[in-house]
Amino acid sequence: MIRERIERLREKMREAGVGVYVIPSSDCHESEYVCEHYRAREYMSGFTGSAGTLVVTLEEAGLWTDGRYFLQAKKQLMGSGIVLYQMGEEGVTQIEDYVGERLAGGGKLGFDGRVMGAFGAEKFVKKAQEKNVEILETRDLVGEIWEDRPEIADAPVKVLEERYTGESVQSKMERVRQKMKEEGADVHVLASLCDIAWLLNVRGEDIPCVPVVLSFLCMNQDSCRWYVRKSVVSNEVLKHLTTCKVEIREYEKIYEDLSRILKEQSVWIDKKNVNVRLLTSLPAGVRIVDQKNPEELLKAVKNETELQNLKEAHRKEGIAFTKLMYWVKTKAKTEEITELSAAAYLDEKRREQEHERGRSFAPICAYGPHGAIVHYEATEERNVRVEPGGLFLVDAGGHYLEGTTDTTRTFVIGEVSQEQKKIYTAVLRGNLRLAYARFLQGCTGYNLDVLCREPLWQMGMDYKHGTGHGVGYYLSVHEGPNAFRWRFSEDEKAVALQAGMVTTDEPGIYIEGEYGIRLENELVCVNGEKNAYGQFLEFEILTLTPMDLDGVLPKEMTQTEREWLNRYHKRVYEEIAPYLEHEEREWLKEYTRRI
Amino acid sequence: MIRERIERLREKMREAGVGVYVIPSSDCHESEYVCEHYRAREYMSGFTGSAGTLVVTLEEAGLWTDGRYFLQAKKQLMGSGIVLYQMGEEGVTQIEDYVGERLAGGGKLGFDGRVMGAFGAEKFVKKAQEKNVEILETRDLVGEIWEDRPEIADAPVKVLEERYTGESVQSKMERVRQKMKEEGADVHVLASLCDIAWLLNVRGEDIPCVPVVLSFLCMNQDSCRWYVRKSVVSNEVLKHLTTCKVEIREYEKIYEDLSRILKEQSVWIDKKNVNVRLLTSLPAGVRIVDQKNPEELLKAVKNETELQNLKEAHRKEGIAFTKLMYWVKTKAKTEEITELSAAAYLDEKRREQEHERGRSFAPICAYGPHGAIVHYEATEERNVRVEPGGLFLVDAGGHYLEGTTDTTRTFVIGEVSQEQKKIYTAVLRGNLRLAYARFLQGCTGYNLDVLCREPLWQMGMDYKHGTGHGVGYYLSVHEGPNAFRWRFSEDEKAVALQAGMVTTDEPGIYIEGEYGIRLENELVCVNGEKNAYGQFLEFEILTLTPMDLDGVLPKEMTQTEREWLNRYHKRVYEEIAPYLEHEEREWLKEYTRRI
Repeated sequence: MIRERIERLREKMREAGVGVYVIPSSDCHESEYVCEHYRAREYMSGFTGSAGTLVVTLEEAGLWTDGRYFLQAKKQLMGSGIVLYQMGEEGVTQIEDYVGERLAGGGKLGFDGRVMGAFGAEKFVKKAQEKNVEILETRDLVGEIWEDRPEIADAPVKVLEERYTGESVQSKMERVRQKMKEEGADVHVLASLCDIAWLLNVRGEDIPCVPVVLSFLCMNQDSCRWYVRKSVVSNEVLKHLTTCKVEIREYEKIYEDLSRILKEQSVWIDKKNVNVRLLTSLPAGVRIVDQKNPEELLKAVKNETELQNLKEAHRKEGIAFTKLMYWVKTKAKTEEITELSAAAYLDEKRREQEHERGRSFAPICAYGPHGAIVHYEATEERNVRVEPGGLFLVDAGGHYLEGTTDTTRTFVIGEVSQEQKKIYTAVLRGNLRLAYARFLQGCTGYNLDVLCREPLWQMGMDYKHGTGHGVGYYLSVHEGPNAFRWRFSEDEKAVALQAGMVTTDEPGIYIEGEYGIRLENELVCVNGEKNAYGQFLEFEILTLTPMDLDGVLPKEMTQTEREWLNRYHKRVYEEIAPYLEHEEREWLKEYTRRI
Repeated sequence: MIRERIERLREKMREAGVGVYVIPSSDCHESEYVCEHYRAREYMSGFTGSAGTLVVTLEEAGLWTDGRYFLQAKKQLMGSGIVLYQMGEEGVTQIEDYVGERLAGGGKLGFDGRVMGAFGAEKFVKKAQEKNVEILETRDLVGEIWEDRPEIADAPVKVLEERYTGESVQSKMERVRQKMKEEGADVHVLASLCDIAWLLNVRGEDIPCVPVVLSFLCMNQDSCRWYVRKSVVSNEVLKHLTTCKVEIREYEKIYEDLSRILKEQSVWIDKKNVNVRLLTSLPAGVRIVDQKNPEELLKAVKNETELQNLKEAHRKEGIAFTKLMYWVKTKAKTEEITELSAAAYLDEKRREQEHERGRSFAPICAYGPHGAIVHYEATEERNVRVEPGGLFLVDAGGHYLEGTTDTTRTFVIGEVSQEQKKIYTAVLRGNLRLAYARFLQGCTGYNLDVLCREPLWQMGMDYKHGTGHGVGYYLSVHEGPNAFRWRFSEDEKAVALQAGMVTTDEPGIYIEGEYGIRLENELVCVNGEKNAYGQFLEFEILTLTPMDLDGVLPKEMTQTEREWLNRYHKRVYEEIAPYLEHEEREWLKEYTRRI
């Protein structure tokens, strides 16, 4: 079937004079999650992983993906004739070099510019220029052969009321327009869906796990146009937007409208967050202001209303998560609990909460060796029973009108080894040391990351992921610009932590083939003491679920660390206990005891 | 006298058509310490601080200096007619704006381009261009009126043998030439004196506290020219250089020679480390490679020979410092010990060590409230007695053929308060936490700084200086590129710590008008475990002098921290005790006891 699809694509390529056609994994908005309509790479290759790029020439086809997906891709590409290129492995040809070489054979370079990121396109464009080859970016050749292509969902847009957002659209626009003035930008083009949803105080259901609306936005000092499928805009939304002086235009009109911008104007367009067609639609001569979208920082700093709501969201999530913890820890011995049934139990308990709006990402419920797979997702085939004598890692989150959550706990089921407890305790110590840090204004996540890693580094261990990421407010569970990381990257500028930013704190250890331990809380940055030394900042923990004391060796902790944990557990009990059944409550008392 | 000098300068300015004349504090090499011959700013203003710039117009004169020197400058400028501009204070005119405004009055902008940094000159040049005003940079107008100008010292250059340097000049040059190839640079111009001394394995006495030779160097793949006053080059040195194929040229010839470089060539010249005349001497059209000098990183990573020698140097310094500690702590009650006599005692004990080569910087011996002045230097007027009931901060270092040292200890004299001990202990904890850190290769000082500060930040306190700086090998006590800092600076790229780098670890607390506490060790970075997680790095402490246990509250420390301190003190005793007198040894035993 895949071979047949590729042959049909090649017919289209021949007809269009294309020698090499590139199919990325993205939608038109550089989204992290992509709805089915845009899964062209999956349709053409059979590979279902979230990251990967397919390159089809008239004779060959190759798929590039990263370490997370090598095994899966190998399996799914079997029999397709597509060659797997394992990115990051030694000696593996870089995708742009492959494209460059194949272009020497003649024919244009083709891709659908709407689903190709402007930043990612640069390397291909460069190769085409080197080979003196034309680029065809205005045709979606996959779309032309795709029968039964899934439609984009038609779920209606909802207005998110000010009691949840805490700020009117007018006020947000004013702040964005102020930033535009500061950067000397006449026009601001926005394709990132979370930024648009934040700015317009709207939410949708167009993408799994992220409550956004497929749309573009273009504004200047006087007007604002929202490019969206009119079918999803109800009268209520229309009224809301009219009040905010936002004009509605058809989704696909954006490209044409951009081509009409006066070339004397300067346009703020964040190259890392737009597709290449948006960029190439601009008339030659306009000045590009290629800065991060101003919305990114504005929405990262949560306002008072959002912060109050977030506490409510985390109480709700804490109730569901604590109930899961009770259930798994007390019943795993006698009942057949599996990874999938645990995930379902958590969903069920979450749905019992008011204003619940679904999962914020596909949960990781990983027992034993599965816990060592950082991006594990249980399926019917892989699903195993959660049994005494192992560690059970659960990383999950939900959306509520009051905000988005992301929690990881690792549950000790039955008895585990002293070694496992030792590592569990080190992970916990890292988590606490970051959560209870105090620091001066100006510190970034690069400064603080080591606090979390040091207990593990002291043992000669490490986790190969960041310590934490920003979290959106009833938006994407992964949000910039705040993060905890230690490796500097050339293109990411360090951003100072500010009061109101929410970041996860999630150290872990992964022993391949054996187990994984990760403990994740969300931290909100708050102002501490201000004195002659400056403004101090600290964190408050939002997440409310016990750290499993069955994994903790109190003697491995300092007095201060034990005090921190006791303080946290006291709060968990006080906030969660009132919402539990009698048995659960008794159990919680035991599991939030002082150590 | 100052007024008279300024008037004479103005005569020269009128004669040369100069309206504004700028006098920086530097020599021709952007040196941190400057020999008397080059102290033109001091000669013209009477202000003796290490940092400051004087601007003289035909009607006015102004001096710009930073917070460290406000009081001193105010005093020293009194009666001179020179206006003090306090840099960094709100509303104070920036020096370049002042120059720009005054240039509007007509006349050229003048300065001696040989003592003006190329990087620092840019802001003045820009103003001159804006005002369409000529620049005169080839005349030293101060030199023209300076009677009895001190001569540059004529101390002979010495060759530093390979048993101290661990690497031949040929080998170093090969590595530099390799870097030149990598950067595509045909020619490499070097003005930074420590880099030259390192590269040529020579040392001199031209600058106080830094054993370097005033000189320039210019090399390509085939030849190398050293521009130096021939009077200081002995036959021994000549022979050494001939072996290394280094040609000697007169010091001032560099400018002329640079003007003859072919304009097709590319020249590696580190703008932050050359004077502006070197840059403007290059023919228009040469391609400038403006990167950090390759020698900086090469010399920062000490080789095995240097590291072995450094241990020897620190043993010697440790003996002297421990003897000082014994003397001050046991005799301050009964003998009249002062800040100056303590400094002299340390010098004396250091001079008793073999291969001693003098102070590596002016020592800070600061009792009581003086300890809170970060850059304090005792003088006859300020000198006070070291009495029981206070803290005595000593920050000092020496040169040996085996390397350069930098140590700070704060001694408890008699009884101090519980509050002081609490802060002392927090400073010590920070010092230890950094010293005993383990971390993955790739970490920079920005990642680790927080380990040192966190105990103080937890108390809502901070020190307003970096946590540590690199240290040269029998060269400057302040050396890049490695450092421990937390604030990112736009123009300083973070450099990963490498095995062989030596960095100080010196947290402190300064209570104005009361006392200062600083505890400084030098740390050498070494390879730790290498495993599946990567290459771990750690530190070894080079410095060997007890932390004063009279200031330590063991209960404020974690078990691990106490263990670290005990381990360190055990080493101090083992390495230093054999070189002490009986009484000193008994005392040391007590002061390195387990806690």
